[in-house]
Amino acid sequence: MAGDIERVATGDAPAPAGHYAQATVWDGLIFVSGQLATRPDGTRLNHQPFAEQARQALANMLAIAAAGGAGAEDFLKVTVYVVGIAHWPEFNAIFAEMFGEARPARAIVPVPELHHGFLVEVEGVAVRRGA
Amino acid sequence: MAGDIERVATGDAPAPAGHYAQATVWDGLIFVSGQLATRPDGTRLNHQPFAEQARQALANMLAIAAAGGAGAEDFLKVTVYVVGIAHWPEFNAIFAEMFGEARPARAIVPVPELHHGFLVEVEGVAVRRGA
Amino acid sequence: MAGDIERVATGDAPAPAGHYAQATVWDGLIFVSGQLATRPDGTRLNHQPFAEQARQALANMLAIAAAGGAGAEDFLKVTVYVVGIAHWPEFNAIFAEMFGEARPARAIVPVPELHHGFLVEVEGVAVRRGA
Repeated sequence: MAGDIERVATGDAPAPAGHYAQATVWDGLIFVSGQLATRPDGTRLNHQPFAEQARQALANMLAIAAAGGAGAEDFLKVTVYVVGIAHWPEFNAIFAEMFGEARPARAIVPVPELHHGFLVEVEGVAVRRGA
Repeated sequence: MAGDIERVATGDAPAPAGHYAQATVWDGLIFVSGQLATRPDGTRLNHQPFAEQARQALANMLAIAAAGGAGAEDFLKVTVYVVGIAHWPEFNAIFAEMFGEARPARAIVPVPELHHGFLVEVEGVAVRRGA
Repeated sequence: MAGDIERVATGDAPAPAGHYAQATVWDGLIFVSGQLATRPDGTRLNHQPFAEQARQALANMLAIAAAGGAGAEDFLKVTVYVVGIAHWPEFNAIFAEMFGEARPARAIVPVPELHHGFLVEVEGVAVRRGA
């Protein structure tokens, strides 16, 4: 038996805005919920420039993964939902800056809109270190 | 060896409309295909209100997971594709009602349209009980 | 310990266009990055008909999975992002042709656009044979 599902709850990222956990962990796999550009204190950056939104959303995802026991290098897959594919190059540059040597599988998926007018949402699957 | 991939086929959810399985199972992980608001008998609720569509799509996902050996509490991640982010609060309330104490990781992804004019599609990854 | 994350790099599919790997592999699971209709030599088929784009994108996904040790029959889940749900029947027919007896879980997700004007993107999770 691989054991029970754990749920991640960290103050280093915004509290869930609905009926979901920040992340679930099972058998070494960490599933991080979709993250928007909200600061851990709840402040929404939905009117800030794309770059700032991308950094905050990725920071939230990385903070939740860290609380679950994974660093950037432990991500298997990241999925990025973006309003306007024109943001692709800017997102990729910020992603490279924040992930460094780590290169997970990735998909960038354009969407018509996001909640509260945000421009980017990120989610991912990572591996608990030592799992 | 973790063994072969199993495929779920249950009459408690609509038969696949194309070349895919209702779900696959491997090493305790259950991947449930995207579910729309079609009744198990094939009746499409694509002209019904959003709430009814959300309940049927989630019921299909839960029925397929149950056939694979997982309950609502065994979901690791649910991804929700919705036509119109304005449906977010209504979807979240229905999700809370149907998942109860269970809180998987989740992402809600707006899309411009869905097949046959449906308003919501859900998919998920769950864990077989006892895996 | 299930070991380190491996990264797939094969000349049988286009090189990553950004900061990501073609696929990651961990504990028998292969996560293939979103694939567009680019030939392995880098030629973009973004102005070709939908059917040709679908075949190339799927061929890329299958080539990367093969390099990671998985065939079509080893896919757990495929996610398809398509510009225009009207392409659903054509995509399903091509998918059936290329996957043969194999039926993974699947979701087809309409999007408003894709990078460089492509019409379809595919990604998937597969199992390394013998894992």
